[in-house]
Amino acid sequence: MHFKINREAKTSRTGELRTKSGRVKTPLFMPIATRGAVKTILPSEIEEIGFEVVLGNTYHLSLKPGTELIKKYENGLHGFMNWKKSILTDSGGFQIFSLGARAKKRFGESGVKLTEEGVRFIDSTNGNKYFMSPEDSIQIQLDLDTDIIMCLDECPSYPCTQEQAKKSLELTTRWAKRCKKYFDKKTKGRKKKPLLFGIVQGSNYEKLRIQSAQELVKIDFDGYAIGGVAVGEPREQLKEILKWTLPYLPKDRPRYLMGLGRPDELVAGVVSGVDMFDCVIPTREGRHGRLFLWKDDPQKIDFKKQVIFFETINIKNARFKKDLGKLDEHCDCPLCKNFSRAYLRHLFDVNETLGSRLASVHNLTFYFKLMEALRKNNE
Amino acid sequence: MHFKINREAKTSRTGELRTKSGRVKTPLFMPIATRGAVKTILPSEIEEIGFEVVLGNTYHLSLKPGTELIKKYENGLHGFMNWKKSILTDSGGFQIFSLGARAKKRFGESGVKLTEEGVRFIDSTNGNKYFMSPEDSIQIQLDLDTDIIMCLDECPSYPCTQEQAKKSLELTTRWAKRCKKYFDKKTKGRKKKPLLFGIVQGSNYEKLRIQSAQELVKIDFDGYAIGGVAVGEPREQLKEILKWTLPYLPKDRPRYLMGLGRPDELVAGVVSGVDMFDCVIPTREGRHGRLFLWKDDPQKIDFKKQVIFFETINIKNARFKKDLGKLDEHCDCPLCKNFSRAYLRHLFDVNETLGSRLASVHNLTFYFKLMEALRKNNE
Repeated sequence: MHFKINREAKTSRTGELRTKSGRVKTPLFMPIATRGAVKTILPSEIEEIGFEVVLGNTYHLSLKPGTELIKKYENGLHGFMNWKKSILTDSGGFQIFSLGARAKKRFGESGVKLTEEGVRFIDSTNGNKYFMSPEDSIQIQLDLDTDIIMCLDECPSYPCTQEQAKKSLELTTRWAKRCKKYFDKKTKGRKKKPLLFGIVQGSNYEKLRIQSAQELVKIDFDGYAIGGVAVGEPREQLKEILKWTLPYLPKDRPRYLMGLGRPDELVAGVVSGVDMFDCVIPTREGRHGRLFLWKDDPQKIDFKKQVIFFETINIKNARFKKDLGKLDEHCDCPLCKNFSRAYLRHLFDVNETLGSRLASVHNLTFYFKLMEALRKNNE
Repeated sequence: MHFKINREAKTSRTGELRTKSGRVKTPLFMPIATRGAVKTILPSEIEEIGFEVVLGNTYHLSLKPGTELIKKYENGLHGFMNWKKSILTDSGGFQIFSLGARAKKRFGESGVKLTEEGVRFIDSTNGNKYFMSPEDSIQIQLDLDTDIIMCLDECPSYPCTQEQAKKSLELTTRWAKRCKKYFDKKTKGRKKKPLLFGIVQGSNYEKLRIQSAQELVKIDFDGYAIGGVAVGEPREQLKEILKWTLPYLPKDRPRYLMGLGRPDELVAGVVSGVDMFDCVIPTREGRHGRLFLWKDDPQKIDFKKQVIFFETINIKNARFKKDLGKLDEHCDCPLCKNFSRAYLRHLFDVNETLGSRLASVHNLTFYFKLMEALRKNNE
């Protein structure tokens, strides 16, 4: 089996996922390399922090530079961006619909047009027209030669009516079947197969979440993602969605909560039994000078008991102007090891992008250490 | 003595300069860390390339974050930016006058006002008023605790009349005397003294360049810089200015050509007997995707014979779109070792700043290897 649970608590678990690029420890967090690069940071630095999987974006990479180029590299996207460990690619669905708002503004209703067959969309940056079917999305991801491939889903915006949500998830289920069929055909006989994940939708309706999970499980995927979160729903909804959905997913398959979240949301996810996460927060917040700091040594925190385990600061704040101290007592990232708060603040103050780079590395280190501590907490 | 010439050819020489932070090999090139950071690059990476001196900027650092803060760090600017090797700081003169044009546009003639005592100027970014005397400039640099300190000079724009140039250089000489006097008083009895350099001015007038050199040599500095170049004068003028000036500078003191230049200008400088260089070109060009490539293995180039030893490319050019090749056959920088031309082009195409970072590292590596090869060429 590609997924092994080493230890299981009430709901949370630690395990190991085997991809064609290697074994990775779960629960895990994936840094975002949308366009084949984690912003400002080298792959070797991502590896040094300890990450074993990064996330690439099917939509963006298929537009630029295109799969024709990436296919020519050894192991596709791995060779292109010089990352030898595992890569997960999302299907492009989320981007087509979220960027679709922009395209619709510019090109009217034809900006994104959904049919049973697939989705027609216009790249709002240049007006070029594209079509993507579920099969196309899988083919692109096979061309990118990544390790974990996501089914194309329709991701409805929030809020949406129960009727809309039902219609949408049923289309997502039909697409998921087509994805699986195409994937099986294309990877048949391959020794090293990527893993294929289905995506549970159903907005904030319990019945629909359960329906979606049950239908996908029947198709039988290597893992299951919870989609349609981080789309503007209230924060407290997250735990509910997890509570509704997770019991209907098989225990022996990895579960991936898409696009979330803040450190406390990651803890909530792990405690509920989620194995995989991705989010732009550590890098995006870092680029704006917002940093996550530990309240205690992460190795000593009992996340079941201690709710407030971190704080966030904005280094641009005047109070750091003369602060010669280390950014985070409990961190040994290249920023905390070598520079002071006042120096980091200075870099942001004079727009030196080295500041963004160092802050991103710190936040990613925070996220990695958090997952590491959560894995340890479970042992 | 703080400067030792190891080997001398007709005019060019290789040597060793001893600063309070260590010994550095000459001829050398200094990367620019204007605001206490080489743009996008960590000090540890600058050291890995091989550089032994970086250049900080008195004007910029005294405005932001100010010397009051930097003084509090161990070894001043060294501790602040975490660079243990040598630092040269320019005096601020060049910036006051070059940025003065902007201040004058906004605040009228009061933007920059020169008197015998010093220079009043307005920071064009916020309208704050400042005054800097030659003594102030030295004090700031002593506070920054850097290794090589430059005298405050007036740097006339190009072109300027012989009369203007004469008046200006004579003020620079009087200021140089005051700098030396103040420096001697402040560093008297110190075991580890920084080095103090005078700056030769005189625009493009042979007589004035000689007058300036002779007057400065009488004051007796630890080294001599050739200033007032890279201010818009025609390229062919450079060799003339060097030919006029260098014979009047003592052989046993380092010579520093300020603000230059392109790789061929560095070769021209070294061949004429210059020991030190600084320039924004490798980093600034890198950030715009313009890269220097070797025509041959730099260790095998005879720079006296081979005029065309490099080429420049713009990686954004469409011809690199599908170029899976290594950027530079003769380079082993992190970019050339790990990534292809098409990948670098992609990073620039989608505005990933990792591209600027990698390109800057490559160009700096090119500059370092050039100086290394020129040192070897002389042996």
